[in-house]
Amino acid sequence: MKIKEKTKNINQKIAAVGLFLSGIIVGTTIVATVSAQRETDKVLEIAKARGLNPDHIEAALKTYHPTGMKDEYIMFSSGGHSGQVIVIGIPSMRILKYIAVFTPEPWQGWGYDDENIEILRGDLCDPQRAKLTWADTHHPAISETNGDYDGQFLFIGDKANSRLAVISLKDFETKQIVCNPLGNSNHGAAFVTPNSEYIIEPSQYAVPQGGRYAPIDKYAEQFRGYITFWAFDRAKGRIDTEKSFAVEVPPYWQDLCDAGKGPSYGYAFCNSFNSEMATGRKTLDSKEPPLEVGVSANDMDYLHIINWKKAEELVKAGKHKEVVGVGGFKFKVIPLDVAAKERILVFTPEPKSPHGVDVSPNGKWIVVGGKLDTNVSVYSIEKIKKATEANKFEKTDRYGVPIIAFKDALEAQVQIGLGPLHTVFDDKGFAYTSVFIESVVAKWKLEEWKLVEKLPVHYNIGHIAAAEGDTVAPDGKYVIALNKWSIDRFSPVGPLHPQNFQLIDISGPKMKLLYDMPIPLGEPHYAQVIKADKLSPWLVYPEVGFSPAKMKKSAHAVEFGKEKIVRKENKVEIYMTAIRSRFTPEIIEVNQGDEVTFYITNVERAREATHGFALGGYNVNISIEPGETGSFTIKADMPGVFPFYCSEFCSALHLEMAGYLLVKPKK
Amino acid sequence: MKIKEKTKNINQKIAAVGLFLSGIIVGTTIVATVSAQRETDKVLEIAKARGLNPDHIEAALKTYHPTGMKDEYIMFSSGGHSGQVIVIGIPSMRILKYIAVFTPEPWQGWGYDDENIEILRGDLCDPQRAKLTWADTHHPAISETNGDYDGQFLFIGDKANSRLAVISLKDFETKQIVCNPLGNSNHGAAFVTPNSEYIIEPSQYAVPQGGRYAPIDKYAEQFRGYITFWAFDRAKGRIDTEKSFAVEVPPYWQDLCDAGKGPSYGYAFCNSFNSEMATGRKTLDSKEPPLEVGVSANDMDYLHIINWKKAEELVKAGKHKEVVGVGGFKFKVIPLDVAAKERILVFTPEPKSPHGVDVSPNGKWIVVGGKLDTNVSVYSIEKIKKATEANKFEKTDRYGVPIIAFKDALEAQVQIGLGPLHTVFDDKGFAYTSVFIESVVAKWKLEEWKLVEKLPVHYNIGHIAAAEGDTVAPDGKYVIALNKWSIDRFSPVGPLHPQNFQLIDISGPKMKLLYDMPIPLGEPHYAQVIKADKLSPWLVYPEVGFSPAKMKKSAHAVEFGKEKIVRKENKVEIYMTAIRSRFTPEIIEVNQGDEVTFYITNVERAREATHGFALGGYNVNISIEPGETGSFTIKADMPGVFPFYCSEFCSALHLEMAGYLLVKPKK
Repeated sequence: MKIKEKTKNINQKIAAVGLFLSGIIVGTTIVATVSAQRETDKVLEIAKARGLNPDHIEAALKTYHPTGMKDEYIMFSSGGHSGQVIVIGIPSMRILKYIAVFTPEPWQGWGYDDENIEILRGDLCDPQRAKLTWADTHHPAISETNGDYDGQFLFIGDKANSRLAVISLKDFETKQIVCNPLGNSNHGAAFVTPNSEYIIEPSQYAVPQGGRYAPIDKYAEQFRGYITFWAFDRAKGRIDTEKSFAVEVPPYWQDLCDAGKGPSYGYAFCNSFNSEMATGRKTLDSKEPPLEVGVSANDMDYLHIINWKKAEELVKAGKHKEVVGVGGFKFKVIPLDVAAKERILVFTPEPKSPHGVDVSPNGKWIVVGGKLDTNVSVYSIEKIKKATEANKFEKTDRYGVPIIAFKDALEAQVQIGLGPLHTVFDDKGFAYTSVFIESVVAKWKLEEWKLVEKLPVHYNIGHIAAAEGDTVAPDGKYVIALNKWSIDRFSPVGPLHPQNFQLIDISGPKMKLLYDMPIPLGEPHYAQVIKADKLSPWLVYPEVGFSPAKMKKSAHAVEFGKEKIVRKENKVEIYMTAIRSRFTPEIIEVNQGDEVTFYITNVERAREATHGFALGGYNVNISIEPGETGSFTIKADMPGVFPFYCSEFCSALHLEMAGYLLVKPKK
Repeated sequence: MKIKEKTKNINQKIAAVGLFLSGIIVGTTIVATVSAQRETDKVLEIAKARGLNPDHIEAALKTYHPTGMKDEYIMFSSGGHSGQVIVIGIPSMRILKYIAVFTPEPWQGWGYDDENIEILRGDLCDPQRAKLTWADTHHPAISETNGDYDGQFLFIGDKANSRLAVISLKDFETKQIVCNPLGNSNHGAAFVTPNSEYIIEPSQYAVPQGGRYAPIDKYAEQFRGYITFWAFDRAKGRIDTEKSFAVEVPPYWQDLCDAGKGPSYGYAFCNSFNSEMATGRKTLDSKEPPLEVGVSANDMDYLHIINWKKAEELVKAGKHKEVVGVGGFKFKVIPLDVAAKERILVFTPEPKSPHGVDVSPNGKWIVVGGKLDTNVSVYSIEKIKKATEANKFEKTDRYGVPIIAFKDALEAQVQIGLGPLHTVFDDKGFAYTSVFIESVVAKWKLEEWKLVEKLPVHYNIGHIAAAEGDTVAPDGKYVIALNKWSIDRFSPVGPLHPQNFQLIDISGPKMKLLYDMPIPLGEPHYAQVIKADKLSPWLVYPEVGFSPAKMKKSAHAVEFGKEKIVRKENKVEIYMTAIRSRFTPEIIEVNQGDEVTFYITNVERAREATHGFALGGYNVNISIEPGETGSFTIKADMPGVFPFYCSEFCSALHLEMAGYLLVKPKK
């Protein structure tokens, strides 16, 4: 009913504008502007026909991008259990790319090319994790310099399997995957320190150290969490596993982290939500509470305050242990007792099933949202430092970790609504918190600690992202509500619905909803939004014969006209070129049982002249972008005649860009 | 320079509108409409600031969808070598879903659930194709009743591996995959006959029958193509492989097909582009022409005219052969000599590397685009029938197939531009042809055979789709240009660029470009566009314990409160429920080496209350929509403690919806 009334009002409003304009026309004779007037009439007519009110018209004009107009911002969103990253233009809300990270994706040839199969196997990965074909990507982090996004790299973690990926923003391709040998789940990864010195990966569901077995009733004694600091070698564009370390923490189910900056530089803040150490119902007839109840029993859990600068020094001083983890890989760990004793790990209480922890742009404030709370709790780094330096702790937890009293660390609480989760910031001192249960975005003022406004979102907002939101200098302009459910917002597409990203204009005094964007694949968690002009991706690879995996010229590149087939006993190497519209060689005969490796160089230099190489029956499709050398290896165990063809539409004679692999049967 | 001038003109135009309106304001005193005027001013101000001209404003208002407004049409687009289907709302151009078809997709749990792993293995699939993890999906086809889309099913083919998939539009999930035992590549699949009696799958690159080996110099003798007619059992929602058959055709590299309707009902039309039977350069120092040259040598290839109604009768009469194909599967084939003799297969010449073949809504005209031509060639079914009935053929090809003279089958040629590919139709007797080399959409008038207008597109248009375009009654309103390259249209995202779908308004006398939509994943070929209200998908599964694979209640469903763990020696079956926010059971202990099957019933009835089930380390993620029973099986060969959790954000206590699988090591 309400909607109907609203529509009626809107229509009246539009009619009023129309009436006004046509009244004017009658009363005036400005011939020169009649055509402009017609345009205005048309605008109103279309708007009326489509039921658009003035706010809608404004939103349409703020988000519409005519052909060739570029987006101002680029958003990198996790894909959740798709295992990938989604790249979205802001404010047009168009998906520009789906970056294959942990999950094979044949359009990009990801998981089919020999070199990226190698990346997918990962570093420090046990045999089981080396074979994984999916991930649960949660939190992307753009690399930072001096606390500002520098547009060079993107990091993202796999919650399900404790892995972390490095993506280059030169070609938007994944360059490295590392496995954490300490356990089986993270959640928060990835968060970067202000110069990307480290990428922070907190574990989530505690497990026995190194993935060992331990009975569930040994939970308190043998299960542990870890906050891992992966050292990043920017020059190499890779994580340096040798320089990385972890801080052992109690089995309290750690959740998200954020790195300090400015006055809080050198610290990381992570929350936890199972200080109860609940382990659920051990049998089907158990009278114990289920996990959701047991884990939520306490009013307070512990904000983990980690001094990573000091931890780094301790590791340099050799005060860590070398732990043998999953797959037999060794990893540097600062044991819990050392972390507690050295004040590398300090706690302070945080209320009501804490979830998000976010450091303000000036680095002074740490904002925590409690899933079952109605407040956000704001902690002061100054107070935390003061208490720590003064050794002013109210007690220690059972593992000896010192606890700063709530009142000694807290600056303020702001009542904003039921179920606050995550907080982002603008350029004017406002904070924007996603409020899940109430399904709103709450805008509140930092330092005045006052709620300003709430905007309903549709529905069940999880994370929230802001333009340059995690930097020392956010841009304002836009926040994006990453809503978990869309329910009735879009045309139905079966029982599995899209999520809904809502773009909100925060440039004015009031928040304004601009756009609803369905998320058709994956279940995004967090997203980061960077100014588009900070990115300078390659349009084609820098030289012909380039290996994206090695980020330099491939040893297997071949020049046009120098193609060759090299046979050594039952190994065959094909050095092929691809150019519009032919492969050379194009007829290849091998013997059944041969191991055949194709090295294919796309010798094109034209932007977008990508060639695919698809081989029927043999489960091969690789994507070879201009300049790239791709490769794959098959065991030719299936005799027959197998057409191969260019799978990326490249020219008028694209269909003719084909050939045959003939596999001659054994006698 | 041109763009700059254009922008200047636009700004002048906008300024004129603004001046006009403000002049009016000064000269009048209509107080009541001042606020409406302010709205209009604001519109112009925003448009000016963003460089939008009046056409842009119109396009913005025609495509913008405020929160909750649904799209009028739904487009099903192939994903190309992503192996999937992309579902897009028209005219908002938002991706609503990415349907996992041939490629595993963990967000949907596709390829992880025991029952859909079984679907992916396929029917009639040899062991190699049963293991495929990708496909090259080209042409989607919505099921039809009386030549009109009925919104029940979607079919799509895999060009790389000669497979075909059936998707139900009740839940937008893949229900069946069949392998064609005759060979290794198709292209055109799928096309439906007017009542979905058959789904037509033409082969592309010819291979020896049944995937055998034959040397390339036996090409003419031993290589063949096939036009396969897969019988569809609508009641079962499945392809009936027993009732399906193929027509053997010469090794001319068949391409696309279209089914006749109205006066051409009972016929299928497929083109070919290698009547030269070129086989390329057999060695690296060969002097033969490359395939792209050899295949394009002739001015004419052959349009294949197939009488499938008569073919069906022949099969019923037993005039087919049972061919033993790949994997030893038998398949019914009408041999080439029989097809020629019985006039099931008749040719007529078609010019200049033919590609698209499209039957007009009234069924009278068959439109062929030649990739290197400047004309579309229009054939008359009446003339074709007349010539066939009169046995008026100019000659036969080397395989004995009768050829109707070009002039005896042709109705008209329309010169529209260089590189015509595909043609779609509207409700006013116009045809719209994609013109690749010229990068335009050409609008021309049927029966007047006259070019009307050309609209430039960006860039390299492949297919073109129209609202209800392949039915007997197209809607007009929109066509979508499926452009292969976007080049400079969007913010750069590395050397692999998105494609560009351009929405074109065809409701007025002139075509108008409305929207540029980047395609971020896969490389779409064809798409079909159905009126949204023809679809009636389920919002949740019809009953608790439903198996989407079986489309009925699962034998493994369990009620809430009746969960159980059944152990038989080293086999363990877990009958689990999922409800916000707990799994029951939640602590599960098994022994190393056990085979463990989870049957998980989501007992929710609320729209969108999906639960995921992710198991760290064991490569498991399934998606269990409301009412669904999902399942997976692992061999618990890795000892340790493995957290599992709900991977689909479901409630405030979603993170607490977890548990542990403990795998006790062998002594």
